[in-house]
Amino acid sequence: TFIRGIQTVTLIPGDGIGPEISSAVMKIFEAAQAPIKWEKRNVTAIQGPGGKWMIPPDAKESMDRNKIGLKGPLNTPIAAGHPSMNLLLRKTFDLYANVRPCVSIEGYKTPYTDVNLVTIRENTEGEYSGIEHVIVDGVVQSIKLITEQASQRIAEYAFEYARNNQRASVTAVHKANIMRMSDGLFLRKCREAAEKHKDVKFTEMYLDTVCLNMVQDPTQFDVLVMPNLYGDILSDLCAGLIGGLGVTPSGNIGTNGVAIFESVHGTAPDIAGKDMANPTALLLSAVMMLRHMGLHGHAKKIEAACFDTIREKKVVTKDLGGNSKCSEFTDAICQRVKDMD
Amino acid sequence: TFIRGIQTVTLIPGDGIGPEISSAVMKIFEAAQAPIKWEKRNVTAIQGPGGKWMIPPDAKESMDRNKIGLKGPLNTPIAAGHPSMNLLLRKTFDLYANVRPCVSIEGYKTPYTDVNLVTIRENTEGEYSGIEHVIVDGVVQSIKLITEQASQRIAEYAFEYARNNQRASVTAVHKANIMRMSDGLFLRKCREAAEKHKDVKFTEMYLDTVCLNMVQDPTQFDVLVMPNLYGDILSDLCAGLIGGLGVTPSGNIGTNGVAIFESVHGTAPDIAGKDMANPTALLLSAVMMLRHMGLHGHAKKIEAACFDTIREKKVVTKDLGGNSKCSEFTDAICQRVKDMD
Ligand SMILES: CC(C)[C@H](C(=O)O)[C@@H](O)C(=O)O
Ligand SMILES: CC(C)[C@H](C(=O)O)[C@@H](O)C(=O)O
Repeated sequence: TFIRGIQTVTLIPGDGIGPEISSAVMKIFEAAQAPIKWEKRNVTAIQGPGGKWMIPPDAKESMDRNKIGLKGPLNTPIAAGHPSMNLLLRKTFDLYANVRPCVSIEGYKTPYTDVNLVTIRENTEGEYSGIEHVIVDGVVQSIKLITEQASQRIAEYAFEYARNNQRASVTAVHKANIMRMSDGLFLRKCREAAEKHKDVKFTEMYLDTVCLNMVQDPTQFDVLVMPNLYGDILSDLCAGLIGGLGVTPSGNIGTNGVAIFESVHGTAPDIAGKDMANPTALLLSAVMMLRHMGLHGHAKKIEAACFDTIREKKVVTKDLGGNSKCSEFTDAICQRVKDMD
Repeated sequence: TFIRGIQTVTLIPGDGIGPEISSAVMKIFEAAQAPIKWEKRNVTAIQGPGGKWMIPPDAKESMDRNKIGLKGPLNTPIAAGHPSMNLLLRKTFDLYANVRPCVSIEGYKTPYTDVNLVTIRENTEGEYSGIEHVIVDGVVQSIKLITEQASQRIAEYAFEYARNNQRASVTAVHKANIMRMSDGLFLRKCREAAEKHKDVKFTEMYLDTVCLNMVQDPTQFDVLVMPNLYGDILSDLCAGLIGGLGVTPSGNIGTNGVAIFESVHGTAPDIAGKDMANPTALLLSAVMMLRHMGLHGHAKKIEAACFDTIREKKVVTKDLGGNSKCSEFTDAICQRVKDMD
């Protein structure tokens, strides 16, 4: 929705530290004069007719209208009996690709430098099908479902992503030596997409080999594409290499421009409301969102301000090695953004 | 089989560098006067009645008699149409637990120090069931099978292992938030085993969280127990932390004392026959074997000689940062073993 060049985005602040870090992002966006209007919505699972879990109608309606969302962390107590809100959102809006760029952050020391890769995870099927049975007492099966359609869609997406983001190679991650039919199908679709995108280098690698090589030298990887569970694992592993979920952005991409960008860390109830949270993951997710919307100038400016502030290390939050409050860190970034004009 | 205190072990030298590193191990065992007699067997998959793939009868007979095996790397060309020899061995001898101690090696620099953990992988079922179907054209399912019996067996094993090896804690690794029934069953069995072994601390953790924490600080982990595929991934990841498969030992444990110890690296055809291979992984696997057989004195001596040689860095192979040949490295270890007497 464009109003005089201003686009409306659904903002789901979330729980715990969610509201604080969302405010930080809004403040920085304002400083950068990003042409975004926020429409805040709460999401808490509700039960529709027949007991089906769904997201609240006004949140759904907002997303349907705006197509683009930014989301903070959500409480998802397993005990509550409803499915993870994150899963429900992916499903509701058919967000089939989870994209996580993992790039080393100067000034935030980890055992690795020069990490610069992107994990692309199939987000809708595989081991997350939710189909399970008790065969006989004491024997349970879970079904991993791989379809040609979803495999093709994610494979195509990975190559398009590589091309659009000047990335040289795509690695398909699989265990087709064990799951010959399911991972075999996934792999075949990756190979077919590779055939169509000869400008991007294509390799295939077993998941175990990727994990081993990843911790030995992550710089050898570029874009990685994989089924759902492998993506769950590898995206978190890679986040660990650059400093954890507190600094790693994430985007869930659907069709027709629909997308939700989110920080994937927890709600951190222990520090919630204490002005101590680190808004970096949500801010960098919001930067991904700007790029998705074609607002590259604003994206670049905000990203640079964030990285510069972290590199300088003068005004950063505790987890980034500093002593500053969330609000001080936010103000420092705002100041840099303004200084750039 | 005991002959005057000497025990016979089935030795499967394997392919590529397998024979060289097996010779190295035999030489070091001789220097240490380990009371082991080797019975060499080749394994290449053969097809039995009805086209069923099996390991050669004389290798099977040898293992059945000796109960204990040491195995080098095997060529398993997927294209050949037969299953991985490694999988076939696990299945044939019901080797239900794959045990991999990952301990930082002084003198072999990696981004991590003080890693000291053990992965215990369920080796017989889960995602490796081999059951797959095409549902309709373009839709494939793979079945993950989790049984009460196998889960209980591996959970019990993990706690027994922890107790017998003076380890303080066991972490169950799972995705029971997604695969509620199958991983749920696995987890329940771990909890039950924990109830019986109150002297060992028990924790549970999602696989993705383990991966993230592992690359951030592996020293927080001790014994980890998990279903088949998660073990495949995590055992390789952990090997990567301490320097890769070239230095990581592995044991596959069955019932009634049956066990096969093996190096899990490849056959390295490019350096085969050139006296360049690093025998460390197979040697440390053979040390695990000695401990399994109760030969702790010999195990300790050989292990110390190996680690001392690597730490000193004077006579080590290329991959360990030196210039020496496999035979020179082997001789250096032999010399140390003899010097200890
Ligand atoms: C919260 C959980 C259901 C989810 C998953 O397993 O996919 C999380 O780990 C993630 O990666 O978004
Ligand atoms: C060779 C392959 C079938 C095997 C596996 O996937 O289990 C290997 O990766 C391992 O860990 O032993």
